[in-house]
Amino acid sequence: MNQAMKTIEGWYCLHDFRTMDWTRWKKASEGQREQALSEFKDLLDKWAIVEANKNGSHSVYTVVGQKADLMFMILRPTMKELNEVETEFNKTILADYTKPAYSYLSVIEKSSYSQMNFNPFEDPAMLAKLYPTIPKNEYICFYPMSKLRGEKTNWFMLPVEDRKRLMFEHIDTGRPYTEQVKRIVTGSIGFDDYEWGVSLFCDDALQFKKLIYETRFDEVSAVYGIFGSFFIGYLLKQERMNQFFQIL
Amino acid sequence: MNQAMKTIEGWYCLHDFRTMDWTRWKKASEGQREQALSEFKDLLDKWAIVEANKNGSHSVYTVVGQKADLMFMILRPTMKELNEVETEFNKTILADYTKPAYSYLSVIEKSSYSQMNFNPFEDPAMLAKLYPTIPKNEYICFYPMSKLRGEKTNWFMLPVEDRKRLMFEHIDTGRPYTEQVKRIVTGSIGFDDYEWGVSLFCDDALQFKKLIYETRFDEVSAVYGIFGSFFIGYLLKQERMNQFFQIL
Amino acid sequence: MNQAMKTIEGWYCLHDFRTMDWTRWKKASEGQREQALSEFKDLLDKWAIVEANKNGSHSVYTVVGQKADLMFMILRPTMKELNEVETEFNKTILADYTKPAYSYLSVIEKSSYSQMNFNPFEDPAMLAKLYPTIPKNEYICFYPMSKLRGEKTNWFMLPVEDRKRLMFEHIDTGRPYTEQVKRIVTGSIGFDDYEWGVSLFCDDALQFKKLIYETRFDEVSAVYGIFGSFFIGYLLKQERMNQFFQIL
Amino acid sequence: MNQAMKTIEGWYCLHDFRTMDWTRWKKASEGQREQALSEFKDLLDKWAIVEANKNGSHSVYTVVGQKADLMFMILRPTMKELNEVETEFNKTILADYTKPAYSYLSVIEKSSYSQMNFNPFEDPAMLAKLYPTIPKNEYICFYPMSKLRGEKTNWFMLPVEDRKRLMFEHIDTGRPYTEQVKRIVTGSIGFDDYEWGVSLFCDDALQFKKLIYETRFDEVSAVYGIFGSFFIGYLLKQERMNQFFQIL
Amino acid sequence: MNQAMKTIEGWYCLHDFRTMDWTRWKKASEGQREQALSEFKDLLDKWAIVEANKNGSHSVYTVVGQKADLMFMILRPTMKELNEVETEFNKTILADYTKPAYSYLSVIEKSSYSQMNFNPFEDPAMLAKLYPTIPKNEYICFYPMSKLRGEKTNWFMLPVEDRKRLMFEHIDTGRPYTEQVKRIVTGSIGFDDYEWGVSLFCDDALQFKKLIYETRFDEVSAVYGIFGSFFIGYLLKQERMNQFFQIL
Repeated sequence: MNQAMKTIEGWYCLHDFRTMDWTRWKKASEGQREQALSEFKDLLDKWAIVEANKNGSHSVYTVVGQKADLMFMILRPTMKELNEVETEFNKTILADYTKPAYSYLSVIEKSSYSQMNFNPFEDPAMLAKLYPTIPKNEYICFYPMSKLRGEKTNWFMLPVEDRKRLMFEHIDTGRPYTEQVKRIVTGSIGFDDYEWGVSLFCDDALQFKKLIYETRFDEVSAVYGIFGSFFIGYLLKQERMNQFFQIL
Repeated sequence: MNQAMKTIEGWYCLHDFRTMDWTRWKKASEGQREQALSEFKDLLDKWAIVEANKNGSHSVYTVVGQKADLMFMILRPTMKELNEVETEFNKTILADYTKPAYSYLSVIEKSSYSQMNFNPFEDPAMLAKLYPTIPKNEYICFYPMSKLRGEKTNWFMLPVEDRKRLMFEHIDTGRPYTEQVKRIVTGSIGFDDYEWGVSLFCDDALQFKKLIYETRFDEVSAVYGIFGSFFIGYLLKQERMNQFFQIL
Repeated sequence: MNQAMKTIEGWYCLHDFRTMDWTRWKKASEGQREQALSEFKDLLDKWAIVEANKNGSHSVYTVVGQKADLMFMILRPTMKELNEVETEFNKTILADYTKPAYSYLSVIEKSSYSQMNFNPFEDPAMLAKLYPTIPKNEYICFYPMSKLRGEKTNWFMLPVEDRKRLMFEHIDTGRPYTEQVKRIVTGSIGFDDYEWGVSLFCDDALQFKKLIYETRFDEVSAVYGIFGSFFIGYLLKQERMNQFFQIL
Repeated sequence: MNQAMKTIEGWYCLHDFRTMDWTRWKKASEGQREQALSEFKDLLDKWAIVEANKNGSHSVYTVVGQKADLMFMILRPTMKELNEVETEFNKTILADYTKPAYSYLSVIEKSSYSQMNFNPFEDPAMLAKLYPTIPKNEYICFYPMSKLRGEKTNWFMLPVEDRKRLMFEHIDTGRPYTEQVKRIVTGSIGFDDYEWGVSLFCDDALQFKKLIYETRFDEVSAVYGIFGSFFIGYLLKQERMNQFFQIL
Repeated sequence: MNQAMKTIEGWYCLHDFRTMDWTRWKKASEGQREQALSEFKDLLDKWAIVEANKNGSHSVYTVVGQKADLMFMILRPTMKELNEVETEFNKTILADYTKPAYSYLSVIEKSSYSQMNFNPFEDPAMLAKLYPTIPKNEYICFYPMSKLRGEKTNWFMLPVEDRKRLMFEHIDTGRPYTEQVKRIVTGSIGFDDYEWGVSLFCDDALQFKKLIYETRFDEVSAVYGIFGSFFIGYLLKQERMNQFFQIL
C-alpha cells in the first residue's frame, strides 16, 4: 500500500555551476573585463531587489576544487522565473568567459513526518522555511541525494512509521549542529536526477564534514543514503568580487 | 514461459535536446540572427502544417538548468521522417549556434493490461492516443525509464497478472492528477537505451513533482522503476521566441 | 567444469559511427563539398567491388537521434583489412567533416547449440552465414550485449544443457519475425567491451521494437541479458546520398 | 545506534591535477615560456615561505600516464586559503598552458580507534600529524576511497569494536612498510565524492604496489574498500623543472 | 587472516593510447609531416637501442576501431623512466597531431601459486619473464581486469588453496593456446584503476577471441573476472609506418 507522506513546497531552486575560462578572461582587455563585471553587478543588484522584496533569493559562491569556479544558488516562485534568470545570465558578457559545469533543479520541500494540525501556509515559521532568504554564511555545502531502492533494502517500501523513526534518529544526531549549520532541503523527484538536494550553510567549513561524517553512521544514511557529488563554495560577497576577478 | 503482452504502436517520437552556443550567438550580427530566426520560424511553420494535417506533431521548449537549452519533441508516422526532420534542423543556420545535448528515440505505445475486444484501430479514443497532437501546456517533464531485471527482483519474469495488478495500483495513485497532467508514454525497447519514455504536460510544474513523488511509493516504481535523467521544459511559443533569442 | 561450446567464426566486423560537423560542412564551398562527396563515392565504389567479389561487405546508414549521424557496417576477412578500411576513411576529405562517435569490433560467430555432424566449412548454408552480404533493408538496429555474471545468476556457470534450452525458447519467440527481420550475430569477447553484437535488418523499423520487446520476456533476455546502446540506422543508398549531404 | 567515532582534523587539503597543453606550450616563444616559468617559480617560492613558516605545505609532481601531467598537493589552515591558492594558480601564465584534469578536496583526519586520554592538541606527535610538512619523497601515490554500504555488508552499520579490530589487522599488514612508505590520510565526507583520500610517499614506487596488494587481502579492504582512481606522481623538484618544461 | 601471496615484479609498463587528429595531419604541409615522422623515427631508433641493450622494450600498434589510433606499449626499469618516455613523446611534433585517448600503468608481475624453492632472480627463465622483449607478433590484445569483491563472492577472501585451484583450471583451459598466443601479465594495484593488465600477442587475431571466449567459462573468469575495455592493435612496423601516415 502506497505510503507516501504529504509534502509542502515553497520556492523553486536552481544550483548553477560555471567554470571560468581564465585564459580568455586574461586575454580580454581591462575595459572588456570592467564592462563584464559592471554588467554582472547590475544583474546582482537587480536580483538583490527581488530578494529585498521577498520574491526570491540568491547567493553566489566560488567553488573549491575543479568541479566548477562559480556556483549560483537561486530561489524563485515559479519554474519560468528560474529559466529566465538562467537565460539572463547566459546573455551577459561574463557568461562568455564561463562554461557550464553542472546544475541542479529542485523545489523547497517540507515533509511532514510529524503531524501538522494547522494550516502551514498561515504559520510564519513554516512560511519562513518555504520562502527563505538564503543564509549569507561564508561557506555552502551542496549535494544531491537519493534513497536506496535495492533488491532487499528499499526506503520507499518501508512503512511510514519506520521512515519516521529513522528520520527522527537522524535529526537527533544532527541536533548539536543546528545552531551552527543552517540547511535548506529541496525535493527534486521529477525535476532532476537525484531525489533531494541538500544545501548547508556555515562559517566554519569543517562543521559540514563533522556533521555529515557523524550522520553517515545513522541507519537512514548508512543503509539508505545514495549521495551525488559534493560541492563546497565560498561566499562571493560584493567586496570579494573585485579580488576574485582581478587580473594584474 | 514468455509473458509478453500485446502492444499497439502509433507515431514514432524523437526528443531532441540542444545547447545554445550563446557566445557565438551574441557575436553574430543582428542581421545573421534575424536570418537564422526567420529560417527557423519557416521550419516551424512547415511543421505546423504537418500537425494541422494530422501527419505528426511537435513542440519546442526551453530547458531549465544546464542539461540543454532547447528541447524538440517530434512525432512522425515513420522513422525515416523523424530522421529527415532532424537532418532538416541540422541544416538550418540556427543549428550552427547549438550543440547536440541528448536525444531519445521511441514510439507511442499502448499496452493492453486490460482486455481489448475491439479493433483498436477503429476506436476513435485509441486513435487519438496513438496519433496525438502534443498538448501545448506551459511545461513538459520528460524522462526515460526501464524496469528492474535484478538477481532477485525481475519485472520481466513476473506473471502477467502480477504486472497487471501493480500497474493498476500505479494508475490509481496517479488518478487525482489525470485532469491536470497529460501524458504520452512511448516504448523504446530496441530503439534507445531505456525501455520507455514518459512525457508529462502541465501548466503547473509542481504537479510533476507531486505526481512522481507520490507514485515513487507504488511497488511498481519503488521496486521496479529505473529512471534516467529528468528534463523540465518551458513551452517556447512563437511569441516567446523573440524574447528568448533576443540579444540587446 | 568448463562448459564452453564450439564456435565457428567468419568475417571480422566493424560498426563505425560518425557525427557530422554540419557547421563546417555548411561553411565549405560547394566545390569542396562536391570534391568530398566524389572522393567518398569512389571509396564506396571500391568497397562495392570487394563486396561483388565476395571478399567482404559493407553498408552505410544515417543514424536517427544524436548518438551519431552516420554508421558504417564493414565486413572483411582479416582484422588488418578492417583497420585499413577505417584508416582509408579517416584520410578522406569527408572524414574531416565528421567526428568519431562510437565503434564496435567483432567477428561473425555461429555457436553450435545443436550438434554439427558435418564440416561447416563445406556447408553452403553455413558459408553464406559466415561470409554474408549485408542485407540491404531500409533499416538497421545494432546493439552490443553481454550475459549476466551476477553473484547468484551467472550465464557462464549454467550447464550447457540449460543454456541450450534457454536459447531454443528464445529462438521460438523470435520465429514469427524470421522472415521479416534478418540478423547477423557477431562475437566480441576479447575484441570489444560487450560479449556480442547484434545487427538486425528490416524494412519496417517497428518490427525491431516488437521483436526485442517480446523476447525481453524470455528468461535468457529477462534474466541474463545486459544491453549496451541501441542504434537505429536508415540505409543511405547512393541515390539518397545527394539529398542527405546537400546544402541549399 | 549511531556508532561514529571521534575524529580530529588538521589542515585542509587539495589535490589538483592539470594536463599540459603541449601543443600550445611548444608554439609559445622561448620568451613566453621563460616568463611563465619565472612567474610559476615565484609562486612556488611564495608557497615555500608559507611552508617554512608552518602555515601550510605543498608539493608538485609530474603524473605518470594520461590521467594528468601535473599534480599539486596543497595543505592550508582554512578552506578559503585553499580556494585562494587555486585561484592564484589559475591566474598564472603557466595555467593557460594547462587544462583541469581532476581535483580532490579533503582535510587531514586522525580517527581515534584507540582511546585518547590526553588533549591531542597539546601532543607534539599528534600536532605533527595534523599540520605536517608533505614528505619530499621521489614518488606519491594518491587515491580516494570509500567504505562499502551494501545491502548485506555495511561498514557504517558495524559495531565500533568490529571496525576497530579490522583496522588493527589492516595496520598490522602495513607495518613492514611503515618506515619506507609515509602516509597522509585525509577525510572528505561532505567535501568530495569519496569518503577518504590516501596519499602515500616513497622513494621506490614498487612499494606502493606491494603495500596495497598485500592489504587488499585484509578483510577491511577486500570486503569494505571501494577505490577511486589511482594516481602516481614523480616529485618535480626545482632542479627537474627546467628539464620537464624545456622545449628544444 | 590475510591470504596474500608473494609476488615478484619486473619492469614497469605503460600502455599509452593516442588518437590521430587526421584533419590537422592532412592540413600540414608535406615538409611538416616528413619532419614529424623523421623525428618520430629517431625516437623509435633511440628506444630500439634501449631494447637492444636489454634496458627496456617497446612496441607501437595501430588500434582497430575508434578507441584510439595508436598504442604504445613501453617497458622500463623505473617509473621515472616511463614518465620520461611519455614526456619525450609529448614533446615531439607528431604528438601535436594526436590527442590522449587512454593509458594504463602497471608492472610486470609473477605470482607464485606454485612453490618457488629457488631464487627467482637467479633463474634465467624467470628473468626472461620479468624483463622481456615484447613479442613482435602482428596483433596485440590488451585489457585491464580486476577480481570481484562482491557481497557474497569475493576473490580476496578465498583461501589461497581455492585461488590456486581456480587459477590452475584456468591455465589448463588456456594450454592449447600457449604456443600461439604469448602473454605478459602486469599488476596494477596501487598504480591504476584495475588490478591487472593483460597483454596478449598473436599473428592471428581470432585466437584472442577463441582463448578469451573459452576461458570465460572457467569459474575464475565467469564468477570473479571484471573486465575493462578491450583494445586490439596491429603492429606498426617501420615499413608499415609510411603507409599509415601517408597522405596522398
